[in-house]
Amino acid sequence: MTHPSPSTRAMVPFVSVENMMRLVHHVGLTRFLVELTDAITDDFKRWPAFDKTSRVPAHSAGGVIELMPTADDTLYGFKYVNGHPKNMAEGLQTVTAFGVLARMDTGYPLLLSEMTLLTALRTAATSAMATRALVRPDARTMAMIGNGAQAEFQILALHAVCGITDIRLYDVDPAATAKVMTNLAGYGLNLTACTTPQDAVLGADVITTATADKRNNQVLTDNMIGAGVHINAIGGDCPGKTELHRDIVARADMFVEYPEQTRIEGELQQMPPDHPYTELWQVLTGDAAGRTRPDQITLFDGVGFAIEDFSALRYVHAASQNTAFVQMLDFIADPDDPRDLFGMLARAA
Amino acid sequence: MTHPSPSTRAMVPFVSVENMMRLVHHVGLTRFLVELTDAITDDFKRWPAFDKTSRVPAHSAGGVIELMPTADDTLYGFKYVNGHPKNMAEGLQTVTAFGVLARMDTGYPLLLSEMTLLTALRTAATSAMATRALVRPDARTMAMIGNGAQAEFQILALHAVCGITDIRLYDVDPAATAKVMTNLAGYGLNLTACTTPQDAVLGADVITTATADKRNNQVLTDNMIGAGVHINAIGGDCPGKTELHRDIVARADMFVEYPEQTRIEGELQQMPPDHPYTELWQVLTGDAAGRTRPDQITLFDGVGFAIEDFSALRYVHAASQNTAFVQMLDFIADPDDPRDLFGMLARAA
Repeated sequence: MTHPSPSTRAMVPFVSVENMMRLVHHVGLTRFLVELTDAITDDFKRWPAFDKTSRVPAHSAGGVIELMPTADDTLYGFKYVNGHPKNMAEGLQTVTAFGVLARMDTGYPLLLSEMTLLTALRTAATSAMATRALVRPDARTMAMIGNGAQAEFQILALHAVCGITDIRLYDVDPAATAKVMTNLAGYGLNLTACTTPQDAVLGADVITTATADKRNNQVLTDNMIGAGVHINAIGGDCPGKTELHRDIVARADMFVEYPEQTRIEGELQQMPPDHPYTELWQVLTGDAAGRTRPDQITLFDGVGFAIEDFSALRYVHAASQNTAFVQMLDFIADPDDPRDLFGMLARAA
Repeated sequence: MTHPSPSTRAMVPFVSVENMMRLVHHVGLTRFLVELTDAITDDFKRWPAFDKTSRVPAHSAGGVIELMPTADDTLYGFKYVNGHPKNMAEGLQTVTAFGVLARMDTGYPLLLSEMTLLTALRTAATSAMATRALVRPDARTMAMIGNGAQAEFQILALHAVCGITDIRLYDVDPAATAKVMTNLAGYGLNLTACTTPQDAVLGADVITTATADKRNNQVLTDNMIGAGVHINAIGGDCPGKTELHRDIVARADMFVEYPEQTRIEGELQQMPPDHPYTELWQVLTGDAAGRTRPDQITLFDGVGFAIEDFSALRYVHAASQNTAFVQMLDFIADPDDPRDLFGMLARAA
């Protein structure tokens, strides 16, 4: 080679899937979920400081590819994420993702990271954040409806952050439930496999739904939901995809991330334009009431918002800096004279 | 390690800056520019097949970070690009970029690529595409106003694609002009360094402006522009940044990429809402007239559009596949059972 190696300014740290797994185990999964929940909570509490926009989707017959950007005064983050329910049948992930954190003052990337695993972790941490804010303090039992790729993360986050110990599992496919039973043996949880959603929600203080069908589904119907329950409905995350019967939504008090996005993607899409909701960040700052009565049904209509990914990237950047869990990529052209991009190319010949 | 290596489905090819330079030299710079011009032209000719949106910006005091997505039925592409004019003073690039090409049917990425160099190449190829369609056939002389990082690429693309041989250079900083004179010695061009923009445009058939100030500038005034000239105004690419006196814009026939974006970013932002323009893709398909008279002033109000990046990613993907110019990254979590993301993580402990 006639040209020098890329300078340090050209290099961007990359966290691969394998390194993300190593990082999670290095930190400890429980601690990672707790700290990530706190990182997201910290960012939600400074909600007005963020430049916010709905995600930018590209729809096709089989699914959607989305970009989810956000920024504050000093940092910019975005996530690329797809959602293709039929991928599963071909042995592929329904959801894969990666993201970038960058400096606002120079536009230079600070971190490139896998986010397939990290999205599962931040989605669980977000449910934990909402549940911590809205659930009855004495809640111990959770129904997990949909036992796919998200299920274990959701359960462990609510265990770690909210003290949930008893888990009632249901999936249309019993093999998915068996997978969760196997994976979560040894975590000190009381796990019960249920054969119907009706059975799963019996005695549940928290119900989390994470189903992946891209259509208006009704995994929960009105007669299944008793007083005082908190619901995390996180599987409905695009237009035409909902999980709850609208009578449940009508009875519950709804809490949302970014209303403009929830309106077109969440359970809110099946309600009239004047349906009331509370922005979750205002509950966290104390500017709005959360749960006000033990018999109240609270509904977190989670669709996933860019600030959660921003928080996750920020957390991983801090946790991975100067560790062996990053790989340096030659990502940015860095000529000696910044105007001489061409000279750098010519000298590489 | 107690877990197997990432599967091939987990791996995404990455073209680093160094590998992009190697790829360009392997193909040959001239051939690369010609083929890239043709690739962009091919995609512009099937303009209605694309899902199009204006870029998604995050503005700060020092600049902007943008996401530029687009898709057709089978492929999705996006570019991350920043524009920070003050970076140059700190020895950093004004513009850095990277991008991803992905499959629409699965959402899985096909290619991650540096795009700082590739953006310079595609911007030059886009000017060449517009110039080929709009310039007088006998054009041989080009004025290059602004001799920064883009200049050599612009010149070589117009040389290769449009037969331009005589180059008149001007920059507010004579050192920038000297850099271009040095870099382009040996390319068979007649290069003239000029000390004023007035001098530079003397006898020019094509004028390309690529200045980087983030403000409304007037590098060309009306009395400098004679009949029959083609202008590529490519430096104005964000709100509040223009390069031409509005009298020139008023006299010229304007050709644009994506009108919704040009309206807020291009020279078009200084004109009334009913100012006429022609979409360049329609000239390329033959659906609209390009140059109709030798004395006509044609103006390509180039701001850069996502389809150009899509074409560039598509071209680099094809050119780099199964070569040594890609590095495989462990980018996508690929558990044996796609529902068992957690199991994959747990087994990595």
